[in-house]
Amino acid sequence: MTSIVRNQWYVAAYGREVGRELFSRTICGESILFWRTEAGEVTAMSDRCVHRRFPLSQAPSHLVGDTVVCGYHGFTYGADGGCVAVPGQTRVPRTARLKTYPVFEQDSFVWVFIGDAEKAEATAIPRAPWLAQDGWTTVSGMEPLAARASLLVDNLMDLSHETYLHGGYIGTPEVANTPITTEVDDAAGVVYVSRHMADAECPPFYAKSTGITGRITRWQDIEFTPPCLYKLHSRIAPVGVLPDDDGTDPDAFHVEVVYAITPETESTTHDFWAVARDFALDDEGVSDFLRESNRTVVLQDVVALDVLEKVLTGEPDGYQELSINIDTGGLAARRIIARLAAEGTGEAAPAAPPARTPAGVRSPAAATR
Amino acid sequence: MTSIVRNQWYVAAYGREVGRELFSRTICGESILFWRTEAGEVTAMSDRCVHRRFPLSQAPSHLVGDTVVCGYHGFTYGADGGCVAVPGQTRVPRTARLKTYPVFEQDSFVWVFIGDAEKAEATAIPRAPWLAQDGWTTVSGMEPLAARASLLVDNLMDLSHETYLHGGYIGTPEVANTPITTEVDDAAGVVYVSRHMADAECPPFYAKSTGITGRITRWQDIEFTPPCLYKLHSRIAPVGVLPDDDGTDPDAFHVEVVYAITPETESTTHDFWAVARDFALDDEGVSDFLRESNRTVVLQDVVALDVLEKVLTGEPDGYQELSINIDTGGLAARRIIARLAAEGTGEAAPAAPPARTPAGVRSPAAATR
Amino acid sequence: MTSIVRNQWYVAAYGREVGRELFSRTICGESILFWRTEAGEVTAMSDRCVHRRFPLSQAPSHLVGDTVVCGYHGFTYGADGGCVAVPGQTRVPRTARLKTYPVFEQDSFVWVFIGDAEKAEATAIPRAPWLAQDGWTTVSGMEPLAARASLLVDNLMDLSHETYLHGGYIGTPEVANTPITTEVDDAAGVVYVSRHMADAECPPFYAKSTGITGRITRWQDIEFTPPCLYKLHSRIAPVGVLPDDDGTDPDAFHVEVVYAITPETESTTHDFWAVARDFALDDEGVSDFLRESNRTVVLQDVVALDVLEKVLTGEPDGYQELSINIDTGGLAARRIIARLAAEGTGEAAPAAPPARTPAGVRSPAAATR
Repeated sequence: MTSIVRNQWYVAAYGREVGRELFSRTICGESILFWRTEAGEVTAMSDRCVHRRFPLSQAPSHLVGDTVVCGYHGFTYGADGGCVAVPGQTRVPRTARLKTYPVFEQDSFVWVFIGDAEKAEATAIPRAPWLAQDGWTTVSGMEPLAARASLLVDNLMDLSHETYLHGGYIGTPEVANTPITTEVDDAAGVVYVSRHMADAECPPFYAKSTGITGRITRWQDIEFTPPCLYKLHSRIAPVGVLPDDDGTDPDAFHVEVVYAITPETESTTHDFWAVARDFALDDEGVSDFLRESNRTVVLQDVVALDVLEKVLTGEPDGYQELSINIDTGGLAARRIIARLAAEGTGEAAPAAPPARTPAGVRSPAAATR
Repeated sequence: MTSIVRNQWYVAAYGREVGRELFSRTICGESILFWRTEAGEVTAMSDRCVHRRFPLSQAPSHLVGDTVVCGYHGFTYGADGGCVAVPGQTRVPRTARLKTYPVFEQDSFVWVFIGDAEKAEATAIPRAPWLAQDGWTTVSGMEPLAARASLLVDNLMDLSHETYLHGGYIGTPEVANTPITTEVDDAAGVVYVSRHMADAECPPFYAKSTGITGRITRWQDIEFTPPCLYKLHSRIAPVGVLPDDDGTDPDAFHVEVVYAITPETESTTHDFWAVARDFALDDEGVSDFLRESNRTVVLQDVVALDVLEKVLTGEPDGYQELSINIDTGGLAARRIIARLAAEGTGEAAPAAPPARTPAGVRSPAAATR
Repeated sequence: MTSIVRNQWYVAAYGREVGRELFSRTICGESILFWRTEAGEVTAMSDRCVHRRFPLSQAPSHLVGDTVVCGYHGFTYGADGGCVAVPGQTRVPRTARLKTYPVFEQDSFVWVFIGDAEKAEATAIPRAPWLAQDGWTTVSGMEPLAARASLLVDNLMDLSHETYLHGGYIGTPEVANTPITTEVDDAAGVVYVSRHMADAECPPFYAKSTGITGRITRWQDIEFTPPCLYKLHSRIAPVGVLPDDDGTDPDAFHVEVVYAITPETESTTHDFWAVARDFALDDEGVSDFLRESNRTVVLQDVVALDVLEKVLTGEPDGYQELSINIDTGGLAARRIIARLAAEGTGEAAPAAPPARTPAGVRSPAAATR
């Protein structure tokens, strides 16, 4: 059974990646060709010529104005996917047409709708406004992951791993030691996980970017909209400094860490990451430091998750995982994703683990194919 | 279902490749050992010792006179495949014998018969006499293709791709624009595709080799004997120059482009290519130019077809292709190959597309495994 | 059907390989973590954290005293496999415990028991005392083999291959030419194969290490305890020199060549090799020469067996091998291994070939998966 949720918007690219060169990316197993018209609109269509399946992103295929010319036999397509010329005859077959995909640019991302295109308009695209908003500065990137998307979801929903896997960057003892609170909004399909550390060591990631020298009050508030957009609202302030009664928070530093989780195939994932901040807005040194540091952290995850993917594919089915309190958010996310995946295929959702699993109960491993 | 035609002669090698070193090539999934006896005869036998399957082409296996000595335990075989010595005992088991294959040298090629050896003699070997004939000079090579043979057949039967994939070498706009005529001789099992361009640009491949500077009359006459031998009779002459009434053609340049298409496995192919000419016979510069140019063109095809093979294996069954007039010859070739493959296995041929598919009709993709 | 024998002791490592760094090796398909406690005891436990399966051998996992800390979320385990700490909560789930394996150090090896741990104590560990005994000097190593264990068993049981695959090192014409005698002790589960050469060429391996310059009396006495430990008792002496009547043998050189054959997976093997001698005990030059020579010989086998593994996986089932007198010992070993494998799984053993197969009888190939 597939674990990929269909009838969903996914981040396919940053807007900056799509221009007047043919650009291809596989999203949920579908090879999609992206390019920008002369008027600047992003288009998305199947990356396979209708004639003999040659990839339209493969040289010597190329753009001519607002048409794509196949590099094998010259079949030519317009921005709406319709074929406008074929070799050796003037009549173009009526059925010569590429599948197109709904696309939408928002918050610096190119979103694409995978599934039944008629459901695109009624399906909400989650927001991450800080990534393209005045008052914020953002660094971002994408790392290819040779692991199924659910392993990245597990990773991001349980930040206790920062202490061990990302020590020296974003992890300190307090992250693993501080209990979390988890809330699930089943109607809206959102999972919240919070960890508020009142008096914690300041990791280098925040010490060097904010200039704080002593211990900090550190809040981590996760807001995950399965299956595709994860936001970590991160608040750093000197110990004891809290927001004002009116809700303003002038003496704290705010960082919005955003991950777009896009399945490439059943076992590989596009790991889009962005870090937006509301301080040192024009400081290139801070931007360089945060970009480099976050990329290092993401690559530490990539190494670990690629190993886990190999472990999962190499081991027999029926393996039992052991979950504890820190996994409550991750298990809730798995439950919502399984429900969405079943809806997308018309299957009934599998029996789901409860939102809060008692510590030490072993449950069947999720995410096996 | 296999797409490989059995009970057929295939080109296994150029004669120059087989000598007094053990030489192995896999043909239609069978690993075959080739070597030349001291008298100069080519032999072909299974490349697996009967004892423990060690490949007889693998060092330290070696020839001693007209015997092959296995490099693992020393089992020794004569040119007829019979075992003549084994270790540790003087009696050689009566059943110790390698499978041998009918072989025949002709037109510079070593042909091998795959299938029921009793049918070899009655099965015709197609000819390409120019490759080893006075009055012609030939350049040739072989490129390994990580794609099924049918993709190469498709490629060669539809030369409109020259304009796009081989622009700057052999393609000009006229190739794609000129309609073709197709004839199928079902009884003889031959497909003919002709494209006669009365007034065309001369591509560099022919301009530099013939010395013609202006526009040309260019004829492309394909003669394909499925599944294994493809000939392109190519005629180049200054615009308006036609053969004489008596059939002689002294003022034109003739090039015979020959491809031998030999399946290595279900998804890989030996792509033998040769270019014979009836002009500049002793001009090494022309030979070097044609060898280098044709190899470049073949490698452009290899890149494209290797990509297509990956596309085909990565996509679900049931994909529908769209065929147009230019595909008439290729579809006819597929039909004959499907019939031959079914004959070789004793299965009934699958329902075949008609020889001439109306433009724009989608038909099931061939050549899926 | 698996060909791996369970409920057996296997060599997992040399004792020198296991220390205060986390060390992982896959034995019979199970990933096992080895480390030495501060008191020097070797421990063996599953190399998968119970939480999310992260390999405990993977950085940044690490030892702290006599505990292993998982590098992903910090689950911490003692030397008995029990979990002693988890993140975010003080209560450690009662069921958090790694599978441990019986281990035993003997004859320079770390042995591990694969299968039902309750059967470990009653199962004998075969001995190779010379590898860690006064009066003997040993060189040893391990080469990874991309081939199933049965191919290595075949190889070692039939030394006629020395003449062909290892000519110039340990092979001479007499090895292949001299008939063998084979004895099978079914009750003890041991196969003996002997080849006594009264007057033979001295191969470089023995000429350079012993200093003998002329022809030799060379005895090869194989003692194999399937599935895991192979010993070749090798006796070299000047021609005509025999042991004394009282059984002592002061004028001969003795070499014990030991192989531990440990399946890594169904199709890969750990090939442990050791060469012990009772002469030139302190001569580093002789040690270096024998280490280098034997490693070269092992690598010649590795190349050949890796090729054979590819041949076996690439060919259809039902292939028939041809066996002759030299294969008697190997066929007996296969028969015992098949019986042991069936016992380990509770299946009935497959119909076995007779211990002595008449020369020239073809039998189904063993060792197909």
